[in-house]
Amino acid sequence: MSRPSGRKQDNHKIDWHLPTISSSASAHHMSRELFVLTYGALVAQLCKDYEKDEDVNTCLDRMGYDIGIRLIEDFLARSAVKKCRSYSETAEMIAQVAFKMYLGVTPSVSCCSAAGNEFSLILDQNPLVDFVEELPAERASLCYCNLLCGVIRGALEMVHLAAEVTFLQDKLKGDAVTEIGIIFLKKTEEKKHKRNK
Amino acid sequence: MSRPSGRKQDNHKIDWHLPTISSSASAHHMSRELFVLTYGALVAQLCKDYEKDEDVNTCLDRMGYDIGIRLIEDFLARSAVKKCRSYSETAEMIAQVAFKMYLGVTPSVSCCSAAGNEFSLILDQNPLVDFVEELPAERASLCYCNLLCGVIRGALEMVHLAAEVTFLQDKLKGDAVTEIGIIFLKKTEEKKHKRNK
Repeated sequence: MSRPSGRKQDNHKIDWHLPTISSSASAHHMSRELFVLTYGALVAQLCKDYEKDEDVNTCLDRMGYDIGIRLIEDFLARSAVKKCRSYSETAEMIAQVAFKMYLGVTPSVSCCSAAGNEFSLILDQNPLVDFVEELPAERASLCYCNLLCGVIRGALEMVHLAAEVTFLQDKLKGDAVTEIGIIFLKKTEEKKHKRNK
Repeated sequence: MSRPSGRKQDNHKIDWHLPTISSSASAHHMSRELFVLTYGALVAQLCKDYEKDEDVNTCLDRMGYDIGIRLIEDFLARSAVKKCRSYSETAEMIAQVAFKMYLGVTPSVSCCSAAGNEFSLILDQNPLVDFVEELPAERASLCYCNLLCGVIRGALEMVHLAAEVTFLQDKLKGDAVTEIGIIFLKKTEEKKHKRNK
């Protein structure tokens, strides 16, 4: 069964088999409840596997990283976004395009450093915890959604942006909102400025 | 933040906290690639945890069951489907409404027994394996998507339909299509016929 792949972008060299791109964007859509419950099963399994919350968090982040480095190709192919010219534009792209596409929500973005390299994504709603009442008492340090941090970190790395991504606030831990912090580090490559020179 | 819950149906008594129902159905939509990759991470983790394929399969089925008994409430609330009056109608509902809603694909359905209680869902495309090249040689007996069988089994049980759900064919194992077999067993309750008597 051959399907059109005309929307594939070739300007990002990633050694990964691109998923087949459907001719209809809606063919890729699903309700997120199955995802949310499956994610819950994954976290529960890791909590069985690892006694320490920190180990679960690390594992979720690592899994997310592996997902991010693969998901970026799908994102670039289907979003057809242009290259971002600033950290600020990149942060907005993550919030308004990527979160919308993959989680169906749009966090708000704020810049938190004079240097312009630290951003917060604020989620009023976090669909990933829709079915979670609260964290068990013995899992107080669990970053339940830590996979997301890894996904963002992995995806950014594939477009040559090194970043630290962590949860700064979490409604599951009693905070008013859920906040993901992104700190852009020194660029691993300076490809981005080539065009302007 | 209060949101309308007018689409909730009350005719199914399930002791489970219903997820908040958004006023816009599209608010629940996401691209499925993140789900597909996260599911892959879950299977990979279970393959680390269990040496035998059979144990991974059992675990995926059990996880799916736990998901199905929760997902059914969301399904009934958002699909607003009527009660099915036959096994055949139920099988069509699973294929045309549930699969479409939660995976974005619609399997074809065929009845495979004179008694009218055995059905096959045939998937030409299986989005869950989009990123999977092939099963590793040492995992030849793995039912990679076995979670789906558990989800269907769990969801059916919550509407008082006992069923055996298994993979009969799997493209990942070289079969021409992916086929999920559903055998409806004796009903656990006969509520269904109340209205007609």
